[in-house]
Amino acid sequence: MALIVQKFGGTSVGTIERIEQVAEKVARFRDDGHDVVVVVSAMSGETNRLIGLAHEIQEEPVPREMDVLVSTGEQVTTALLAMALNKRGRKARSYNGSQVRILTDDAHTKARIREIDDVRLHADLASGHVVVVAGFQGVDEQGNITTLGRGGSDTTAVALAAALKADECQIYTDVDGVYTTDPRVVDGARRLDKITFEEMLEMASMGSKVLQIRAVEFAGKYNVPLRVLHSFQEGPGTLITLEEDDAMEAPTIAGIAFNRDEAKLTILGVPDTPGVAYRILGPIGDANIEVDVIVQNVAEDNTTDFTFTVGRGDLARAEEVLQRTADELGAREVRSDSKIAKISVVGVGMRSHAGVASQMFQALADVNINIQMITTSEIKISVIIEEKFLELAVRALHSSFGLDAEPTEESAA
Amino acid sequence: MALIVQKFGGTSVGTIERIEQVAEKVARFRDDGHDVVVVVSAMSGETNRLIGLAHEIQEEPVPREMDVLVSTGEQVTTALLAMALNKRGRKARSYNGSQVRILTDDAHTKARIREIDDVRLHADLASGHVVVVAGFQGVDEQGNITTLGRGGSDTTAVALAAALKADECQIYTDVDGVYTTDPRVVDGARRLDKITFEEMLEMASMGSKVLQIRAVEFAGKYNVPLRVLHSFQEGPGTLITLEEDDAMEAPTIAGIAFNRDEAKLTILGVPDTPGVAYRILGPIGDANIEVDVIVQNVAEDNTTDFTFTVGRGDLARAEEVLQRTADELGAREVRSDSKIAKISVVGVGMRSHAGVASQMFQALADVNINIQMITTSEIKISVIIEEKFLELAVRALHSSFGLDAEPTEESAA
Repeated sequence: MALIVQKFGGTSVGTIERIEQVAEKVARFRDDGHDVVVVVSAMSGETNRLIGLAHEIQEEPVPREMDVLVSTGEQVTTALLAMALNKRGRKARSYNGSQVRILTDDAHTKARIREIDDVRLHADLASGHVVVVAGFQGVDEQGNITTLGRGGSDTTAVALAAALKADECQIYTDVDGVYTTDPRVVDGARRLDKITFEEMLEMASMGSKVLQIRAVEFAGKYNVPLRVLHSFQEGPGTLITLEEDDAMEAPTIAGIAFNRDEAKLTILGVPDTPGVAYRILGPIGDANIEVDVIVQNVAEDNTTDFTFTVGRGDLARAEEVLQRTADELGAREVRSDSKIAKISVVGVGMRSHAGVASQMFQALADVNINIQMITTSEIKISVIIEEKFLELAVRALHSSFGLDAEPTEESAA
Repeated sequence: MALIVQKFGGTSVGTIERIEQVAEKVARFRDDGHDVVVVVSAMSGETNRLIGLAHEIQEEPVPREMDVLVSTGEQVTTALLAMALNKRGRKARSYNGSQVRILTDDAHTKARIREIDDVRLHADLASGHVVVVAGFQGVDEQGNITTLGRGGSDTTAVALAAALKADECQIYTDVDGVYTTDPRVVDGARRLDKITFEEMLEMASMGSKVLQIRAVEFAGKYNVPLRVLHSFQEGPGTLITLEEDDAMEAPTIAGIAFNRDEAKLTILGVPDTPGVAYRILGPIGDANIEVDVIVQNVAEDNTTDFTFTVGRGDLARAEEVLQRTADELGAREVRSDSKIAKISVVGVGMRSHAGVASQMFQALADVNINIQMITTSEIKISVIIEEKFLELAVRALHSSFGLDAEPTEESAA
């Protein structure tokens, strides 16, 4: 008899048939005696259709009106799901963000949730209703419709779970859980039964795009147990919690994340004076370019080399900015390379285990992969390598850290 | 420097191109110094698309959820029109029914407006904004989304005009005004410059479907000057007001309305006892069948004949009900006829002019048309005739009452 918040994304509610399937699933939880709050996204394609209409009018429409426009997408889904539940004899009521009252700041198209009024929802749950809430949206103090930005439905679900003190927040998606790495790259990739919020954050930000980072942060902050499940397949999914597994049994590494969306810029022979990092990265930030990995080499002959990565789409612009900086600073040269990939090993276990870094470097050396950059955090080590070695590196690390699944009869056959 | 409420229906905002044209028109009024509130419907086809989705789930979805679903249609249009105005450098803000706060009762899918909060709209107008409001919808005391039923956008516009004490409520449509009769039937049909609310009500309910009856009633009750105009053609349209024209100059008849949507039922040889009308029509009403014209003949031999009309779609059901009543009452016979048409001459002028009825009957007699039923009201005389004579009758009456336009060079050519 738990209180469960369930979130279904656009693909899971992309057709009437799928909405009916979701209703079946929700009804089963209800029949098991649970109180259920369902958060839904717009039917897949709908948000893009609406944005397309707006763009026929204007390239950059007023954000306030964009929010009025796109927030209708989720509202449509809530009504349809409530109907599908009613059809099955389950009481259900739909609410948009403003009706629940999901109060946000007034940053249209990227608003942040401030407060959720839970009175109405608790009353509906108490009277046996399934509550269906439009994800991704809220309302500001003045009553203007706001949206949380793309993927915000995950955040809505977690925020509702926190406000309602739900026992679990279930995120239904098109994968059956969080994997040790991308199964398309490594055959032996395994679904994790459990992972911590911290690990999930590192995995998500590294490109394992199962969950929105903000939702994971939110869940961690309010300690909302989060479960990733497949919308239309049965299975336990992956539970994301605060608790580390018992340290003795905890695997050192939870998973291997990677991405190929970055490019590398190097400025060589920069006079090594205080504030040089700021003088290099300041103009990049001013140009609204996000920087990921940053490495500064030890100075030599009073000059230093400075390397950082940016999104590939920003490379040309970043290079231009950096060239100007190089001229100003009297640096020797600017180099760029877009054929790179980033690989990270992630795991809270590495806090208590020495040697993860050396094991990682060893594994890469064993397959003759050269490491270009290294950064580390408490629960993550990332390296930049040549892009063409990405798959090889992921497989080598996955195996080296003992993440490969035992071959099952099926996969062995 | 007037305050004008303008309403654009689904066809007028059916494409982005048309929304841009509407924005142009609204901007011109703004530039002339007027305060403008625009009420819009859903883009044509959108409401049906949404209802189609619902019907894929359920034939009769819960009305509450239908309202949540279809109300998104107008919201989309408000955002797009606000964008199109912003693009033209005019400040504009969109509101849905719940944001304005158009408070209604809780009769989902056919709610009635109780009260409109005008504070926010006045503030926006004062700061130079065009206010764009979603038609057709409101919110009940509990914050549930309601809709006013099909065509409710006209009602929204009139109610807003009343609440804001607007100088004029302009209904933009696909005709350039109200005509003396259907121009497809009578070549000489003329656009009326003015018509009274009462006349408009009789014309509208007779099948001249330019405006929703409820909107006209509302406008009459609150004395909101209503103007019917073409969305994309210039012209003065038709003004609908409380004031009759100066009686000396007023034409006796404003127009000729007609419809072919009715069928006639007669019960013959009913024992003429008190309460017989109720015993005949009670069961019809109980079956949710609307009755229009009712005529009871003078009794003869202690029996009476009773004739009434119903919508053609209800004829079979009504006949069944009536046959049961006939058996109970010991009536002689039940007859039905669906090949009828109703023609009405409408005009406040007939109050002060005798002889309108006889002129009407004379005109029909002159073309050998037999009258089957007659009913009269203060400003209307309606007759039921055989359907095949409809066009002939309308032309004869249009000409007899001096409504024909002077042939222009164009039409004479």
